[in-house]
Amino acid sequence: MSNRKKPGPSGGAPAAGSAKDSHYARLRRAHRDEQSGGKPVFRQRPKLPPGESAPDGLVRLYGLHTVRAALDNPRRRIRRMMVTRNAAERLGLPELSALPFPAELVEPRDIDKLTGSDAVHQGVLVEAEPLAPKRLDALGDAPLVLVLDQVTDPHNVGAILRSAVAFGAGALITTSRHSPAESGVLAKSASGAIEHIDHIEVKNLADALGQLHDAGYASIGLDSDGPAELEKTFSGKKIALVLGAEGKGLRQKTRETVTALARLDMPGAIRSLNVSNAAAVALYAARKFLNG
Amino acid sequence: MSNRKKPGPSGGAPAAGSAKDSHYARLRRAHRDEQSGGKPVFRQRPKLPPGESAPDGLVRLYGLHTVRAALDNPRRRIRRMMVTRNAAERLGLPELSALPFPAELVEPRDIDKLTGSDAVHQGVLVEAEPLAPKRLDALGDAPLVLVLDQVTDPHNVGAILRSAVAFGAGALITTSRHSPAESGVLAKSASGAIEHIDHIEVKNLADALGQLHDAGYASIGLDSDGPAELEKTFSGKKIALVLGAEGKGLRQKTRETVTALARLDMPGAIRSLNVSNAAAVALYAARKFLNG
Repeated sequence: MSNRKKPGPSGGAPAAGSAKDSHYARLRRAHRDEQSGGKPVFRQRPKLPPGESAPDGLVRLYGLHTVRAALDNPRRRIRRMMVTRNAAERLGLPELSALPFPAELVEPRDIDKLTGSDAVHQGVLVEAEPLAPKRLDALGDAPLVLVLDQVTDPHNVGAILRSAVAFGAGALITTSRHSPAESGVLAKSASGAIEHIDHIEVKNLADALGQLHDAGYASIGLDSDGPAELEKTFSGKKIALVLGAEGKGLRQKTRETVTALARLDMPGAIRSLNVSNAAAVALYAARKFLNG
Repeated sequence: MSNRKKPGPSGGAPAAGSAKDSHYARLRRAHRDEQSGGKPVFRQRPKLPPGESAPDGLVRLYGLHTVRAALDNPRRRIRRMMVTRNAAERLGLPELSALPFPAELVEPRDIDKLTGSDAVHQGVLVEAEPLAPKRLDALGDAPLVLVLDQVTDPHNVGAILRSAVAFGAGALITTSRHSPAESGVLAKSASGAIEHIDHIEVKNLADALGQLHDAGYASIGLDSDGPAELEKTFSGKKIALVLGAEGKGLRQKTRETVTALARLDMPGAIRSLNVSNAAAVALYAARKFLNG
């Protein structure tokens, strides 16, 4: 998927070189400039804030990757879809009336009204039931799992989910309180990964770590002041990586419970990473160790 | 820095247990819930959009880490500061009148009016001159540099800068067009890193890569379809990592010019990472190789 192939705001493909084309080209450039933090070219262009929340505890998923993955997930129950003609084509959808849920052909701004115009929805949105979190005893034999200790920022959790799936982590374990709520922003940042990994919720994280130890996991808590370098703490055949929220880090009880506290060696003037970046590095290193 | 120690919206420290305290506690919880994608608790609470841009090509920097790093950077020219009493204390500032630029004691909402209420400014904002980008011939003997091929998203570029500094990269090289503009969002995501690394701008990326090769660098372009695994492409004593924008990837000319195209091995159902996560993993791996 290339930005250059992005559909115009109408969702249709404007004829190249036409007045309409250059109008859309200007709009697209203006949008890209704004997204990239430059000066907005059209100061007058109305910005739509996000509309009302999804009804009935549903979650709104948008963006091509995200919706594609939701459509492919047999566990995901979709209640309705809004889609532009262009996005329907790019998703390779059949006749909308043939879909097993109501689907409506719309203009991009109809979706803007729900997501706000800052959301990159790419012309498709579905309302779906959130995926039900599982219990710890549903955890299978995965050699690598990721545990989040009160990390809730949806952009970070989304990016973490994406890396977790990419590096083959078998589950994401969070506490039921201070846990990331499934949301459009989180799902979009996860770029479909949310459909590919078990989300396990536990009441008490220290108890859960104890159960993981009983099941043969070494739990490694990331801490910029950790006594050992990350790779020196790996052992055995099953690893649970534990990350805390940015700024706060791991809670005291978590620090006392993990098998080891580990740091990433950083020689520079900055001594901590964005939490999703730290997660990616730790997942990569753990995957390398496990692959031996 | 802990969320629990965050000052109330007035910037003052409310007496514990007072009515004022629980009012602020509610506001803080509401804010956190909103930040984490949950339902806003106060539907009526007015959201402030970002105000007008900084005057005269200045850049607005906010947040404790970001402003602390700017204050400590002798190359950074600060023109004025707005700060709450609480933030001034946390920054260990002297009498405001003793600072070498105008500084004004304000309430948090005065800063909200400039940054918008979504920005986590932590009670401090400065207006400063942007750091002037350098030319390629200013590049010293750094064994590790990072090259961005039209990555512009300010959150991603900020997180990348933070990882680049943490793993000791000597410079960030970008093209002058489609280059990340220094902005408050970028600087905040970089958490001070922007003050610690040389930003080098080049006109033509392929030419610049040629000059890097002449200077003894192996340039490694990240590409999810790259023929070689990242770590197998490392050689020599100087590495330039090259990353493209999400979705678009590296441009054709860049792909043809780099010493090698490399992939990160990802066994899971998702085959690409968020670009800042990919950068963090690549920097970590390169740093390990160079440390030998």
